[in-house]
Amino acid sequence: MTAIGIYGSSGRMGRAITEQIAIEGATLAGGTDAGGDPAVLARVADVLVDFSTPSALGAHLAAARAARTPLLIGTTGLTQSQHAAIDDAAAEIAILQTGNTSLGVTLLAQLVREAATRLGTDWDIEIVESHHRHKVDAPSGTAILLGEAAAAGRGTILSELRVDGRAGLTGARTEGTIGLSSLRGGSVIGDHTVVFASEGERIELSHLAQDRSIFAKGAVRAALWLADRPAGRYRMGDVLGL
Amino acid sequence: MTAIGIYGSSGRMGRAITEQIAIEGATLAGGTDAGGDPAVLARVADVLVDFSTPSALGAHLAAARAARTPLLIGTTGLTQSQHAAIDDAAAEIAILQTGNTSLGVTLLAQLVREAATRLGTDWDIEIVESHHRHKVDAPSGTAILLGEAAAAGRGTILSELRVDGRAGLTGARTEGTIGLSSLRGGSVIGDHTVVFASEGERIELSHLAQDRSIFAKGAVRAALWLADRPAGRYRMGDVLGL
Amino acid sequence: MTAIGIYGSSGRMGRAITEQIAIEGATLAGGTDAGGDPAVLARVADVLVDFSTPSALGAHLAAARAARTPLLIGTTGLTQSQHAAIDDAAAEIAILQTGNTSLGVTLLAQLVREAATRLGTDWDIEIVESHHRHKVDAPSGTAILLGEAAAAGRGTILSELRVDGRAGLTGARTEGTIGLSSLRGGSVIGDHTVVFASEGERIELSHLAQDRSIFAKGAVRAALWLADRPAGRYRMGDVLGL
Amino acid sequence: MTAIGIYGSSGRMGRAITEQIAIEGATLAGGTDAGGDPAVLARVADVLVDFSTPSALGAHLAAARAARTPLLIGTTGLTQSQHAAIDDAAAEIAILQTGNTSLGVTLLAQLVREAATRLGTDWDIEIVESHHRHKVDAPSGTAILLGEAAAAGRGTILSELRVDGRAGLTGARTEGTIGLSSLRGGSVIGDHTVVFASEGERIELSHLAQDRSIFAKGAVRAALWLADRPAGRYRMGDVLGL
Repeated sequence: MTAIGIYGSSGRMGRAITEQIAIEGATLAGGTDAGGDPAVLARVADVLVDFSTPSALGAHLAAARAARTPLLIGTTGLTQSQHAAIDDAAAEIAILQTGNTSLGVTLLAQLVREAATRLGTDWDIEIVESHHRHKVDAPSGTAILLGEAAAAGRGTILSELRVDGRAGLTGARTEGTIGLSSLRGGSVIGDHTVVFASEGERIELSHLAQDRSIFAKGAVRAALWLADRPAGRYRMGDVLGL
Repeated sequence: MTAIGIYGSSGRMGRAITEQIAIEGATLAGGTDAGGDPAVLARVADVLVDFSTPSALGAHLAAARAARTPLLIGTTGLTQSQHAAIDDAAAEIAILQTGNTSLGVTLLAQLVREAATRLGTDWDIEIVESHHRHKVDAPSGTAILLGEAAAAGRGTILSELRVDGRAGLTGARTEGTIGLSSLRGGSVIGDHTVVFASEGERIELSHLAQDRSIFAKGAVRAALWLADRPAGRYRMGDVLGL
Repeated sequence: MTAIGIYGSSGRMGRAITEQIAIEGATLAGGTDAGGDPAVLARVADVLVDFSTPSALGAHLAAARAARTPLLIGTTGLTQSQHAAIDDAAAEIAILQTGNTSLGVTLLAQLVREAATRLGTDWDIEIVESHHRHKVDAPSGTAILLGEAAAAGRGTILSELRVDGRAGLTGARTEGTIGLSSLRGGSVIGDHTVVFASEGERIELSHLAQDRSIFAKGAVRAALWLADRPAGRYRMGDVLGL
Repeated sequence: MTAIGIYGSSGRMGRAITEQIAIEGATLAGGTDAGGDPAVLARVADVLVDFSTPSALGAHLAAARAARTPLLIGTTGLTQSQHAAIDDAAAEIAILQTGNTSLGVTLLAQLVREAATRLGTDWDIEIVESHHRHKVDAPSGTAILLGEAAAAGRGTILSELRVDGRAGLTGARTEGTIGLSSLRGGSVIGDHTVVFASEGERIELSHLAQDRSIFAKGAVRAALWLADRPAGRYRMGDVLGL
């Protein structure tokens, strides 16, 4: 059985991953938080996951590299120099860095990209997402991720195309734009739908999250996949063979 | 068979109503446009429908009143004095004025009002609508009509509660507000969903229009219902017994 | 604060209700399981809820009646003589018996009944539900409850109208029937949609359950409402003022 | 401009295609029905479409082959020997035979196949479709086409996996099966959703047809694409570059 070590094991994701490790038939090599020794953990683990804080990334990268142990990085808000450090380490060990470890969202993004590539700009793209009432920003990070996938499929970037929160005298829709709408209410974990609308027909591609455990499950599956990889920098899509 | 007279018979709605009259088993008493005589039509018809322009309303009201023929008014953008004239005429004849003749939307508005009345403000209300790419404003008139029904169910008015096109750093949702979101694309005739979202559950009430003929069908059915009514001012909800 | 006593406090619903009592600002008067004394609990509680087993119903009714304490009964599969005993006790105390304590489903059933009443039989009714892969029967009890509400709105009973699991050479749809379809997969808690489909338009009324806690929450709210009621037999709809 | 010739030009699809040819900026080379000469049409057209009857296929194949004109075949219910004749002709001219010319359905089938390939059998697959009340069979041909795409993605065939019209005491869901559910009502042109449901998340891939013109539009676009192809047998997916 593959032994997974967790940097940031007492955080919300760390605890959720601990729970999923048992369910997925792996073993827990151990966990560290403020005070633990990253180097020791890196030597006993077959693969490491990091859901701690960006400030600890340097130490975790060094420990993983020294022990030649693959590393999945789930922390977000990294600086450009941190990304450069990841690239550097990826020359020696397998590293996967991602802001979203859901397998379903990962696949949906790929399907959205494929659809956007194949369907011409006479298919208008709209993205609508729903989240709980406590969410303070709109649209969601996942909606943006899906918008970027759609834009990439059209050979461009989202910032060139996006229309947020359409309201008022907008005029007719501009061809090629991507609309983003956000619903907020109740305790919705996160629903996302990408609509492709043409004359007479629509394609709708949706992801519905029922439970936050899907992020931990995806992280564990990605870690198990990463354990056997050669050095290099990977994406979540690679886990699904996309 | 009931004979229906059409003011504005050569417009888009006038022609669609002409088509539905045959389908619904009524007869066409005739139609007028610029040039026709409203008074003659009012005398030969059992009931009148007006889908012409607001400027012709005065003449149509006078003709209907003189002939004591019930009148369905589907023109929108009426002034306050025109509404007063309608009230005045409704003392003598049956009049139904509405901005939306779809029976489905009429019922949905009633269900939304009922739900908003029964569910506390721990059920957040969001409205999302989709229309074709040529629509130049957002949200749709029907979305606003549904929002007004929800607000009425909560004992208030929509303008106090509405949040249009949520985007950016919005902060957490304010209790009691009603969010309105608009999607645009393809040739969508008009889809509307009112979401009530609470902790752990959602209720969603939707109307999906496939074909613009539903507005003509609803107008004909409302006219047939109106033909037998005593003097008074009616709403679409009355046609469904709401 | 209202003190709630739980018959069957160690079962799944009993434990969920214990959790919700704190959230809803009530207090727990105590609970009994095999071995506890129903009479003592009935005397210290302001209202009782019974989620134990049908076999214990007689003792719980007697205890509630002797103490003149209102009783919510959530056990299902009751015999006709048990229902008669409930009617008998309801002459002296307030009793609410139900197979589904979700407030959302309760309201949806009312909206479905209203829609079925108002819309003629040229609006076809279809019900589709989704549940997790472990569910062993189809359609769900809630789908049947919704179908009964639709049938009642049409002045008849579901068994006269229902078409389960349409497949094969079915011929054209028979007017007035109600179709029931069941999807199974993943961990879906329970989604239900009632479709009213006419020429050119559809109304869809849905309930989406995200979390099983909604049944406990509804039970606690119903119990709090019941605590102040005079003797009589009540339904979940009464809690919402339907 | 490309000149399109239509075998079966007076049928429902033939007339719809005639209308779309103008919209898509092509020209009509002519049409034949019982009585017309297929050979003459084949010589003046840049590409041919056949929406006549299977019995006429032999003559149309011979005419297209003699004139070396590409041929799109939209007739269904072909025999094995007719398919062999198509293969034979495809050695000399470009031929595309299909039972569904909608570009949206063609793309959706590809996305479904991709999703089924990437997601393990812990993602349950369910297909639900809605059609108008006059449809006499269930499930729809398109639902079966989508089920076949899903099965192909799993490396098997639909007949091994399908469960139609689930109802009664079904027991828990069998891993790897594909459920098919059919709703019937109103005038629905055709909605199809493929659900992939796992623990805690769902992916839903849908196609919504608003208008039957999409089949004619897809046929014209496929014909325009086919006009320039070398000899060979093609599928609708090829038109989209899938």
